[in-house]
Amino acid sequence: MVADPTITSFTIRDLRFPTSLDNIGSDPMNTAGENAHGYIVYHTDVPGLEGIGWSFSNGQGNEVLCAGINALAPRFVGRKLSSMTKNFGETHRNFLGGQTRFMSPERGVMQLASNAVLNALWDLWAKVESKPLWKLICDMTPQELVNTIDFRYITDVLTKPQALAMLTALESTKAQRMQQALADKAVPGYNTSVGWLGFTDTEVEAKLQDAVNAGFRHFKLKVGLGLDVDRKRLGMVRRIAGDEAVIYTDVNQLWDVDEAIEYMPHLADLNLAFIEEPTSPDDILGHSKIRAALKPHGIGVATGEHVNNRVMFKQLLQAEAIDAVQLDALRLSGINEILSVCLMAAKFGVPVIPHSGGTGMPELCNHISHFDFVAISGKQSILEYTDHCHEYFTDPALFTRGFYHAPTAPGYSCQITDEAFRRFECPQGEFWKSKRGLEMLGDPWRGCAAEQTS
Amino acid sequence: MVADPTITSFTIRDLRFPTSLDNIGSDPMNTAGENAHGYIVYHTDVPGLEGIGWSFSNGQGNEVLCAGINALAPRFVGRKLSSMTKNFGETHRNFLGGQTRFMSPERGVMQLASNAVLNALWDLWAKVESKPLWKLICDMTPQELVNTIDFRYITDVLTKPQALAMLTALESTKAQRMQQALADKAVPGYNTSVGWLGFTDTEVEAKLQDAVNAGFRHFKLKVGLGLDVDRKRLGMVRRIAGDEAVIYTDVNQLWDVDEAIEYMPHLADLNLAFIEEPTSPDDILGHSKIRAALKPHGIGVATGEHVNNRVMFKQLLQAEAIDAVQLDALRLSGINEILSVCLMAAKFGVPVIPHSGGTGMPELCNHISHFDFVAISGKQSILEYTDHCHEYFTDPALFTRGFYHAPTAPGYSCQITDEAFRRFECPQGEFWKSKRGLEMLGDPWRGCAAEQTS
Repeated sequence: MVADPTITSFTIRDLRFPTSLDNIGSDPMNTAGENAHGYIVYHTDVPGLEGIGWSFSNGQGNEVLCAGINALAPRFVGRKLSSMTKNFGETHRNFLGGQTRFMSPERGVMQLASNAVLNALWDLWAKVESKPLWKLICDMTPQELVNTIDFRYITDVLTKPQALAMLTALESTKAQRMQQALADKAVPGYNTSVGWLGFTDTEVEAKLQDAVNAGFRHFKLKVGLGLDVDRKRLGMVRRIAGDEAVIYTDVNQLWDVDEAIEYMPHLADLNLAFIEEPTSPDDILGHSKIRAALKPHGIGVATGEHVNNRVMFKQLLQAEAIDAVQLDALRLSGINEILSVCLMAAKFGVPVIPHSGGTGMPELCNHISHFDFVAISGKQSILEYTDHCHEYFTDPALFTRGFYHAPTAPGYSCQITDEAFRRFECPQGEFWKSKRGLEMLGDPWRGCAAEQTS
Repeated sequence: MVADPTITSFTIRDLRFPTSLDNIGSDPMNTAGENAHGYIVYHTDVPGLEGIGWSFSNGQGNEVLCAGINALAPRFVGRKLSSMTKNFGETHRNFLGGQTRFMSPERGVMQLASNAVLNALWDLWAKVESKPLWKLICDMTPQELVNTIDFRYITDVLTKPQALAMLTALESTKAQRMQQALADKAVPGYNTSVGWLGFTDTEVEAKLQDAVNAGFRHFKLKVGLGLDVDRKRLGMVRRIAGDEAVIYTDVNQLWDVDEAIEYMPHLADLNLAFIEEPTSPDDILGHSKIRAALKPHGIGVATGEHVNNRVMFKQLLQAEAIDAVQLDALRLSGINEILSVCLMAAKFGVPVIPHSGGTGMPELCNHISHFDFVAISGKQSILEYTDHCHEYFTDPALFTRGFYHAPTAPGYSCQITDEAFRRFECPQGEFWKSKRGLEMLGDPWRGCAAEQTS
């Protein structure tokens, strides 16, 4: 008999990897960031059974994220897991309501916090079913799957019956895709670790050669350093990876709408697949205008890393503003909302290419890309790969010969090792008590462009 | 000589008014909320001179807002006021950057927190100049005013030179509007306090009669209770306030796009000026579709209370989605961003009608409506009025004969009385230590629709 654990209490922890010291994650907007997690463990009445979830920040202010998780987490204490998952879509809607709603709604810190809490429920559910999360979802009937989703605010493009029909139509071919997934041939990857902005040319070159050797044929580089610098770095990719390599570019919201339209055509001869985050992630009409302007130059547009909810993605799709739905595993409100975005993307025929450029993101996104391929879109896409910090996960994302491996451990691959907490929990971990760590914590402008002076 | 204070330290306080006990603020989405403030005081090296700012939540989770303020506030400690205000637009841009940016960006809790911190700077600046904030802004030259604004992400509709030209064109008539403002004839009000959802019909009727006697001719009622109930309550306004009264309606995001389009025409014969927040505040295209559908029925569309930043307002204007820019004094990132939204609204010819439906909001919005009239749009609009909790402000918003009075005390009218803190600071205030207060704090689902049970 499958257990139906009751959640008895929770623990929240603040974990910050000092990634800025190696320029990991550096881009034109975020010159120095520490990949950081607000981490929650739901304890249960079943010995050894825990639900783990976390969400992401860029270091400073991670305690705000933890406070957000702490504000929401009590709602599920004392509850049986099945009472939440039975009508999970309804649970989700109620969970996003109440007094805490006004502060966002469905955006920013509270949205990230809701994600951590819901991840912990999904992790617990998958463990109870002894399945990796992606397979828990793929094994659901279409009806079970749509019951986990709240369709509020998206029924003008996708209703529950429509979603049900879409999923049902894919059922007959699902077993075949499942075989492909179990053979670790479902989710190819593209490599971002070659091109962090803070890397020297020598570092980029060495990383590129390693990535080519590891089977990568798709690469992403940060741009926006000025045309000369950009051309030099992009040319390096072409030289080392060849004319067949697919190159993505990313400028992390640096530009206004017209700047993007002016800048990118100058790089068109380098055959770039898309420019990611050309402007504010909130600018749906702006992305639409940029995409239309760059189309004649063969350059697509992508965004999603900072797109806060399904309503924004709905409009990016309606406005034909993007060539890739780069949803983020932490930004949206849990797997529930991620499923709704995957369904809308499938309906519009736009591939889901999750944002996976931070510590632990590949671990989570790997589940998303697998269930999207097997159960939602039915089409192969690609997933961002970054090479840092996998050693701190008990169920790390594996990548060989160009493909992510399908996760096999029960749960959502959320668990972080004791060693990581010993070193990087904030403020009591070894690193944050060190001289360098204390200096970094004591700088209120860390990672800001300027304004340090009085 | 005008002082140039240096900020030496800050204090943050968590204040929650138990407004839900009187059904104040109740609406279809927020059935029970406690108007709450994350409150910051910047102390300076000038005796008696402080900068005060606060932002707003709906009670539960207000400690998250306070944590957000605490994460940002250190950035200005040790700085001279003039070093921030000299190029305030640039200061603002840098302030929104750095590691904290990733959690939003420019949305949700961190956006609210940035607002509180910036309000404290503006309050301090106005006090140093011995002017009420609205007048500090109106007395600026066009060049000084545009220097306080960061135009990032809006240059496709409004550049700094364009804004400068707009402001310059209004200069010759400014003195006349200033006279009107100083005579307390600049900002008429509409009354929302008559129509909170939790009020009984008898309460609504009594409140209406009082409001008519106080000179109100514009009223807002919550709808979405079902057509019969809505018609009955709206009919009450017509009966008591007469055919000439202007009626606004508000459904606080209850509906999906097609529901709004289906529902509202059934009420068209009641002659309703607009429906506020018909759906998700993020749904620009949805509002545009709703507005087009309701136009033949004579019903306009308004939103803004939950519109998080200038990029969203820019698009609501571009998409011709709204008849009123209901910007919120707390939701946007300080007066700096509010000015940019007022300028865009003026450019598109859409009136600014600030959201002012919570404790202390009339105090702040009164400044905004005054400077919008005198210096930005040059056109008279209207401002929401709610009658609760003014007694807790040292410089309360005054309203007589249909008009708000222009604030006269130096600063931004942000200061809250010691009595309010004694009673309502959380958790140590008198009310929150009482049995009822502790019960309310102990209910993690307070104000949620359901899901309390296991």
